[in-house]
Amino acid sequence: MSHASRRAALRGLLRAADVEALLVTDLVNVRYLTGFTGSNAALLIHTDGDDSSRFCTDGRYDTQSAAEVPDLERVIDRGGAVVLARSAADLVVTRLGFESDVVTVDQHEALVDAAGRAVLQHRTPGLVGRLRLVKDDTETAALRAACAVADSALADLISAGGLRPGRSEREVSYDLETRMRSRGAEGPSFPTIVAAGPHSAIPHHRPTDASMRRGDLVKMDFGALVDGYHSDMTRTVVLGRAAGWQRDLHGLVAVAQETGRRRLTPGTQVVDVDAAAREVIASAGYGDEFVHGLGHGVGLQIHEAPLLGPTGSGALQAGMVVTVEPGVYLAGRGGVRIEDTLVVRDGTPEVLTRSPRELLEIT
Amino acid sequence: MSHASRRAALRGLLRAADVEALLVTDLVNVRYLTGFTGSNAALLIHTDGDDSSRFCTDGRYDTQSAAEVPDLERVIDRGGAVVLARSAADLVVTRLGFESDVVTVDQHEALVDAAGRAVLQHRTPGLVGRLRLVKDDTETAALRAACAVADSALADLISAGGLRPGRSEREVSYDLETRMRSRGAEGPSFPTIVAAGPHSAIPHHRPTDASMRRGDLVKMDFGALVDGYHSDMTRTVVLGRAAGWQRDLHGLVAVAQETGRRRLTPGTQVVDVDAAAREVIASAGYGDEFVHGLGHGVGLQIHEAPLLGPTGSGALQAGMVVTVEPGVYLAGRGGVRIEDTLVVRDGTPEVLTRSPRELLEIT
Repeated sequence: MSHASRRAALRGLLRAADVEALLVTDLVNVRYLTGFTGSNAALLIHTDGDDSSRFCTDGRYDTQSAAEVPDLERVIDRGGAVVLARSAADLVVTRLGFESDVVTVDQHEALVDAAGRAVLQHRTPGLVGRLRLVKDDTETAALRAACAVADSALADLISAGGLRPGRSEREVSYDLETRMRSRGAEGPSFPTIVAAGPHSAIPHHRPTDASMRRGDLVKMDFGALVDGYHSDMTRTVVLGRAAGWQRDLHGLVAVAQETGRRRLTPGTQVVDVDAAAREVIASAGYGDEFVHGLGHGVGLQIHEAPLLGPTGSGALQAGMVVTVEPGVYLAGRGGVRIEDTLVVRDGTPEVLTRSPRELLEIT
Repeated sequence: MSHASRRAALRGLLRAADVEALLVTDLVNVRYLTGFTGSNAALLIHTDGDDSSRFCTDGRYDTQSAAEVPDLERVIDRGGAVVLARSAADLVVTRLGFESDVVTVDQHEALVDAAGRAVLQHRTPGLVGRLRLVKDDTETAALRAACAVADSALADLISAGGLRPGRSEREVSYDLETRMRSRGAEGPSFPTIVAAGPHSAIPHHRPTDASMRRGDLVKMDFGALVDGYHSDMTRTVVLGRAAGWQRDLHGLVAVAQETGRRRLTPGTQVVDVDAAAREVIASAGYGDEFVHGLGHGVGLQIHEAPLLGPTGSGALQAGMVVTVEPGVYLAGRGGVRIEDTLVVRDGTPEVLTRSPRELLEIT
């Protein structure tokens, strides 16, 4: 889908919200609507069309933005959103929306001053986010590519003997990231988690120089960044033969994960997906050891809507891309998490992360 | 300096601002004041002392925050700042400050609701930032280590023949990042810029698969992340013998850079530092080709206060860590930037990035 089509879709939402123009200050939303990949920009989207819309960035990005945003009037000015708010006044906009979930209290004050008659009273939190909920084909293709890079990095790590006692968590995380980079990733999609032994019981452990030991559970949560899109996958393996409790724990989480995946159908409430997987773990007596939500949307951000957790809201739609990642963490002993990234489809969801899920015993 | 001492220093600023307690929601500020390195947290700092202060994070970080924040009462709750605003009301705080430069319009509304009697009307933008302006010894040591990692990565890249015609910008950037990682960096401190030939005229170019060619200017802007602190350095070299215009351009930028460095003394207005370096470039007729500010503070963020640019404000203080990075960019031909990270000292500034600045001809 072209950026112009996304802007056209946004105009529909703006009209429905009775807003004449929207000041877009979230940089990720700017990228979504224009293709601009720099670190500073703002956008004014007018319901009249692209001819009345404006893109603003600073002098460092003059050349880059000319290439990336060829189809909008560009303003090169450090003033960003303030300059665009002023230009909204020039365009005689009287109902100007702003992203109240992104604009800070101080910025809002400055924007209100600049907007003058273009009264900046229309809060439109999450309007662009609502478009971004359902991924178009271009986005799904990038996510598919990002997941494939992560899959292939893990397969190569394992076949190269990269998971063995004596190596440190940090070495393994670096190895995974290097393999993703050499397969074309712009970088990891978030700091890679490699957590061995008791560390695997820490949901978001940072890799240390501690050596992995025979018998350790090793939890790896990682992803690749491709064309600005993030993949997200967790696999937990054992170095050597799995002990009974490790096998049981992995089996339990696998059932919960499959239960969650099976509920990924359009129309299902996100809280119900979470509850179904959570119930499996709670019934086994580990409800208190599953300390986070079941999953989240993935796209231009590693965490985006929808939240698949007890506090989430709304229903799934075809084309959403989400993770399903239950985990059980036994402090001092070890933990297991199994996570996939999937596209919600009318039938069975499309699993983008294709690494085997069975408990791998690395001997 | 301990985190407790930083919180004590903040209390002084809070009392001066006539605020009883501050809700800290900027994650970098939370890290500065507590040492917490996770991705979700909020902090309530009460002027009465640490006993009346609270730290809040979610269940994923229970174990990690217990280790990193042993000296504050911890609340484990996804509610974050909203939960702490409610607890401020319980503590009978009536004058509660918030970070109006970080809190969004929507968050502010939720916080006001939660705070109830603890009236959330006291805007205190940049209060923690004011403390962070001057780095303590712990911080300077981390920045020194980060700069040393970058220096050593560049020296090794060059001596290993990593800069040669036929290699791509992307390969060189990856090579630099790998060398930094193998020397202990947590990662690059920002996406590495390697820009060859005409690309060097793009201030913030992203590395491409284009091959570098003999005669190219190659601009490398990169840094290492160590203990959460960022280094920042730019060097521009020539592949082969420098043409006259390349040598002249490099010489001009070098003089501007030295001029800027010489003005780094406590008490000097930041706009004057920028103006002094800018004047050198403008006198040579390239004022319009120096399209960005002269430098910026560096620390827990890659860009932080003070801004050394025409729109900056305030004076330098001993202990600030800043970059000095003039550049001249000739569209279609090439550009040169030379950048160091330095500590402002009472006498001569301490240069943390120690790579040679002379124009290197790689033959």
